Amino acid sequence: MFFEGSEKKVEMVTAPEAGSLRAMGKDFWAGVVTKAQADILDTISNEHCDAYLLSESSLFVWHNRFLMLTCGTTTLVDATLHFLDHFPLEHIHFASFQRKNEYQSHLQKSAFEEDIERLSQRLEGCAFRLGHLDSHHNYVFHLDKPYQPESDDSTSELLMYHIKGKNADYLRTEGQTVEGIRNQLRLDEILPGFAISDWLFEPFGYSLNAIKGDRYATFHITPQEDSSYVSFETNMDLESNHVISVLLEALNPGCWDLIGFNADQTLPEGQDYQCVSSCDLPLSCGYDMSFRHYQHSGHARVEAEKL
Amino acid sequence: MFFEGSEKKVEMVTAPEAGSLRAMGKDFWAGVVTKAQADILDTISNEHCDAYLLSESSLFVWHNRFLMLTCGTTTLVDATLHFLDHFPLEHIHFASFQRKNEYQSHLQKSAFEEDIERLSQRLEGCAFRLGHLDSHHNYVFHLDKPYQPESDDSTSELLMYHIKGKNADYLRTEGQTVEGIRNQLRLDEILPGFAISDWLFEPFGYSLNAIKGDRYATFHITPQEDSSYVSFETNMDLESNHVISVLLEALNPGCWDLIGFNADQTLPEGQDYQCVSSCDLPLSCGYDMSFRHYQHSGHARVEAEKL
Repeated sequence: MFFEGSEKKVEMVTAPEAGSLRAMGKDFWAGVVTKAQADILDTISNEHCDAYLLSESSLFVWHNRFLMLTCGTTTLVDATLHFLDHFPLEHIHFASFQRKNEYQSHLQKSAFEEDIERLSQRLEGCAFRLGHLDSHHNYVFHLDKPYQPESDDSTSELLMYHIKGKNADYLRTEGQTVEGIRNQLRLDEILPGFAISDWLFEPFGYSLNAIKGDRYATFHITPQEDSSYVSFETNMDLESNHVISVLLEALNPGCWDLIGFNADQTLPEGQDYQCVSSCDLPLSCGYDMSFRHYQHSGHARVEAEKL
Repeated sequence: MFFEGSEKKVEMVTAPEAGSLRAMGKDFWAGVVTKAQADILDTISNEHCDAYLLSESSLFVWHNRFLMLTCGTTTLVDATLHFLDHFPLEHIHFASFQRKNEYQSHLQKSAFEEDIERLSQRLEGCAFRLGHLDSHHNYVFHLDKPYQPESDDSTSELLMYHIKGKNADYLRTEGQTVEGIRNQLRLDEILPGFAISDWLFEPFGYSLNAIKGDRYATFHITPQEDSSYVSFETNMDLESNHVISVLLEALNPGCWDLIGFNADQTLPEGQDYQCVSSCDLPLSCGYDMSFRHYQHSGHARVEAEKL
């Protein structure tokens, strides 16, 4: 029942001369997705963005930006190189490629080091690991080129592990419904007015894309007890609302990572959790990246897992 | 400069009818070591035990028991199967095979699952993981056969990560000496009267075997800043002395694992560290196995690692 929920992520910004990325059309993007060994399951669009829900995570395409997340053992680096085949390098203003720490990295088709070796043949970039190797960490490779993000261009990634409690139990129950999961995640409260595209996988697992204007949010839930993982990512301003605390309350993770690009949230102190390690890194591509690993305080008695 | 200090470990107890394992001779054991892709560097012996210091860790051979630890990308499962080629299964009273969590498991020649698949073709056993997959953990496979360990048969493994401070700095300095390291580890205090065999590797790294009667202890130090690891293992009774606190004080690790087989130490409370997760498992082969992961309290600011 093991499934690697942890995602790889690519994000690129293109020059106006590249034309609209949305105008490349669904066939082009389906080709990109296929290269990652995933499929498109559902699509929603508004005046800014096409949001594709994938068999393994998500793709968002704006006129001059795209963002693709893929989980499992997908080959996102192949999709990235396929995209780059269609654009001269001078049309790429910004590019980043991330890998989160995987539960079982030896089952992946490539290691981050192998991915960046291939990317480096096309993009002059640099790569970093934020966080210790033997604990939670995040890898990032980015194009080493000055870029000036807009003031409202910030991204927050909340990666939750070892979810517990009645909502977590529900997510592991056969017969769960889309409606039930939406209620658990309190979507009305955290994504008011967003257009939603979501998908319930068999026997478990749930993905959601949401868009409103040029804002997006995406959820991916791998509920399996031994390796549970829920990711939430958005370019909404999280300072002004309580999205993170709502999600921590709803899913009760044993630990979580909070990653920001020009979005350095600090969670309120004096809770029953602590930030056990953090890493801040100003990237030469114009984003300040932050990585924080949080754990519930106190001692966890873990059951041995029979293999 | 990355080196995987984390060890694989095999331990077996043989029946009297198997004859003395020591009498198999150094050539036999050198053959076993070669199968793991390691070499013998040094040997010490007393009336109970031959202790071989290896290019990658250690081998201890008693009359009816042996224990082998190998680090790096060695293939300990091959050595284990080679040993089993020489003995009928009914001569094996006890067998266990452990893998600790590795810094970079994708660089290993095999995964634990693959090792136990091969071992299971020869030994009827069962396998467990103690500790969460995405944090520190320990894998164990053992022969599923009743065994009654002697009352003084207990093993403690102390695995220290992210060592800091002046002793850690010394271990990363060129020109360090065996004498200097012995003083740092306060060997006179923690291993009084033990015969010692030790080795300083180029440019860094240190291994030590120690024996006294039928007691053994072994140290392996991988000091490299990004992936530092120091393992200490012994069958001494640690309740009666202060070995663990001496080592924690000397090496100041950011976190550590304490693994016991019929040796459930609890470290004193009220220190500047906490036990963040634990797992206890009575094995059907007669040992109670315990796994404890400790972390220094408070927040660690981690530097980003340029790749």
